[in-house]
Amino acid sequence: MTEPTAEQPAPQPRAAGLSRRRLLGAFGAGTAGVLAAGAAGGVIGRATADDAPAAGAAPTDAVPFHGEHQAGIVTPAQDRLHFVALDVTTDDREDLVQLLQDWTEAARRMTAGRDAGPVGAVDGSQYAPPDDTGEAIGLPASGLTVTVGFGPTLFTTADGTDRFGLAARRPAPLVELPGFPGDQIDPAISGGDLCIQACANDPQVAVHAVRNLIRIGAGVVSVRWSQLGFGRTSSTSTGQATPRNLFGFKDGTDNLKAENGSALDRFVWVGDGDADWLRGGSYLVTRRIRMLIEPWDSSSLDEQQRTIGRTKGSGAPLGQQAEFDPVDFTEQVDGRFAVPETSHVFLAHPTNSGTAILRRGYSFVDGSDGLGRLDAGLFFIAFQQDPETGFVQVQRNLRLDAMNEYIRHTSSAVFACPPGVRDDGDWWGRALFDG
Amino acid sequence: MTEPTAEQPAPQPRAAGLSRRRLLGAFGAGTAGVLAAGAAGGVIGRATADDAPAAGAAPTDAVPFHGEHQAGIVTPAQDRLHFVALDVTTDDREDLVQLLQDWTEAARRMTAGRDAGPVGAVDGSQYAPPDDTGEAIGLPASGLTVTVGFGPTLFTTADGTDRFGLAARRPAPLVELPGFPGDQIDPAISGGDLCIQACANDPQVAVHAVRNLIRIGAGVVSVRWSQLGFGRTSSTSTGQATPRNLFGFKDGTDNLKAENGSALDRFVWVGDGDADWLRGGSYLVTRRIRMLIEPWDSSSLDEQQRTIGRTKGSGAPLGQQAEFDPVDFTEQVDGRFAVPETSHVFLAHPTNSGTAILRRGYSFVDGSDGLGRLDAGLFFIAFQQDPETGFVQVQRNLRLDAMNEYIRHTSSAVFACPPGVRDDGDWWGRALFDG
Repeated sequence: MTEPTAEQPAPQPRAAGLSRRRLLGAFGAGTAGVLAAGAAGGVIGRATADDAPAAGAAPTDAVPFHGEHQAGIVTPAQDRLHFVALDVTTDDREDLVQLLQDWTEAARRMTAGRDAGPVGAVDGSQYAPPDDTGEAIGLPASGLTVTVGFGPTLFTTADGTDRFGLAARRPAPLVELPGFPGDQIDPAISGGDLCIQACANDPQVAVHAVRNLIRIGAGVVSVRWSQLGFGRTSSTSTGQATPRNLFGFKDGTDNLKAENGSALDRFVWVGDGDADWLRGGSYLVTRRIRMLIEPWDSSSLDEQQRTIGRTKGSGAPLGQQAEFDPVDFTEQVDGRFAVPETSHVFLAHPTNSGTAILRRGYSFVDGSDGLGRLDAGLFFIAFQQDPETGFVQVQRNLRLDAMNEYIRHTSSAVFACPPGVRDDGDWWGRALFDG
Repeated sequence: MTEPTAEQPAPQPRAAGLSRRRLLGAFGAGTAGVLAAGAAGGVIGRATADDAPAAGAAPTDAVPFHGEHQAGIVTPAQDRLHFVALDVTTDDREDLVQLLQDWTEAARRMTAGRDAGPVGAVDGSQYAPPDDTGEAIGLPASGLTVTVGFGPTLFTTADGTDRFGLAARRPAPLVELPGFPGDQIDPAISGGDLCIQACANDPQVAVHAVRNLIRIGAGVVSVRWSQLGFGRTSSTSTGQATPRNLFGFKDGTDNLKAENGSALDRFVWVGDGDADWLRGGSYLVTRRIRMLIEPWDSSSLDEQQRTIGRTKGSGAPLGQQAEFDPVDFTEQVDGRFAVPETSHVFLAHPTNSGTAILRRGYSFVDGSDGLGRLDAGLFFIAFQQDPETGFVQVQRNLRLDAMNEYIRHTSSAVFACPPGVRDDGDWWGRALFDG
């Protein structure tokens, strides 16, 4: 055993990617994924846990795990997602606490590009299961972030049972989302006691992280539902180009960004008015939004653009020239509003919704639906200070959205994400359980 | 309309990526995907259709579409996959021929980094549907290959109907695969009249290609099943590092490679002994192999290594030192064979299976299974000269494979992939329909 154990954490700052790098050196040029994807300029595992995220960070770099807020919220959105919701299968509070501590340690290691456990995938006893599953051997940190949230059912079950003595500590805003007109929510892929959002620039690294946290949770949690996202549909930093969603349009042009400090304090981070243990955290809302690809693809360019409220090519608001031109809701063209009052941009824009959320969604294709169509769409993720004045308020304003003709919400969940893990002695939810 | 129409094809060689590049120039730095994934050295759309694939090709480059064989077989395996099987919903042979011609033209364009149609995503009439869906605007060719195959049911339906006058032209080896012990095949995600394998280094580019071919096929074909693969699990070129599958092991070390010319002629390409129209083609077998992640992750390193027959770290055959050391089936350690006779490597190796196949599979995670487990595994793809002496022979030899305890085959399909499209006047299946 060449690395520190969980009981004897390594001194900070540690070099990122130690275990994987060692293997990389020992066994050659590593494996597929990001390397083959051409990260020519990437320096493997360069960042230490104390570094601030660099503006010019390579997609192979590590993102610091410790901080005031959890990474994976305002971190510049990585390209790939694995999201999982889990149910706690034990009634033992101590088992749950131990799991959160073990998860924190494993995430601290994996986000630095290391194996999930101190022994790793290949260095332990031949006669014990490895404490890492091995598929990320040789891969760099790849911008991995792991973000954890607590669902309403962790605090109180539907029948009112206080499972873990947390009922009195449930933040008032953490309640199940209301229904909305047109919802086609499948309960089997909704809700959950806990969630893990793993984002990375290499999908193998994101999947590896979630899979190892599930492995560590055996006997304490079980997977409720799981969602892969293959491509980001939002930017969360002004340094990122705006991606396109499966409607073919640029998405999230007016998203909240990491650089909007005061707006983040107002709309994203939980402040003084909520549960103490959640200060510096955020509420996470997920909605799996199936896109009805076939009718969309047979609609005219005009219909598509008037549905969205932007031009398809540049992403400019209708009536404007460039993507980041301000939306002008008063401008008329040929006697009608340039940006139709039923367009998605009109109704979702902060000017008209009266609020703002930080979107961090991903495109998905989950096979086909048995009716000759791709099961594809947007796995919507939003972070906000309060679900009621965030997603719920925006979504209520979308009841006349022309886009509703082309989408179906099939899954829904809400979680309270605790603040960041501060240092090696800290763990996810410590203030909730120890406070 | 600024580009040639389908009726007036552009002269060859054409510059790749024209339409997307134009948009890129017009609207700025492009979108997410490969660009954000750090393809720092990539030159967008550099290759022309006449270039040979360069050894040092960047992951953003175009792969030539025209050639003796279809691209996507011995092309160095790209990182991401979208595979779709389709059923033909018309009885009209001319509609089917027109579709294959339209698909060929669209694939010729998209593999060069262009829009699927001559008008593109944004340049057509406002009052007509765009002939490209737009989500790949600004993205480079990304190594996209599109490979098409014909299933047994395209020639003769189960009740013997000769749907398109092709029954007499069915190649003798193109029959449904036999059942194997332990199979748990779901017919709903198996088989298909046609298949499209889209591989690229950016998943958005692969999804875009499949989605546009589906769009073009409206009224002629419908999606039977669809599979995304997030990470390649095979190398098909000696220049590629061996990737790891979700068992955490290097996979495909002894795979056939593009550089093994004579072995390809012997094991992969259809030669003189089969249907004339298929010469230069290959048979494609797909198997969706669910991996039972949880029992695997709780098994010891020794059990894992003896199941595979290789060490987990280096990928060396048991008893050897390095990944590419020859497997020695006679070596004994402590009185037992170093490579167990029930190990996957022992039974699948050409020495013992008596044959070789070119594997080109991808890892998948398709949500969860409702029983608290990830639905994850390997989407196995193999190309061979004859399914009976290729996959079937290997698979029969695996009946005692220790790995069977940890896997379940849940989907199966076989297709005959025609030879490559030779030039602008050629199209997929021309020799089959015109011959």
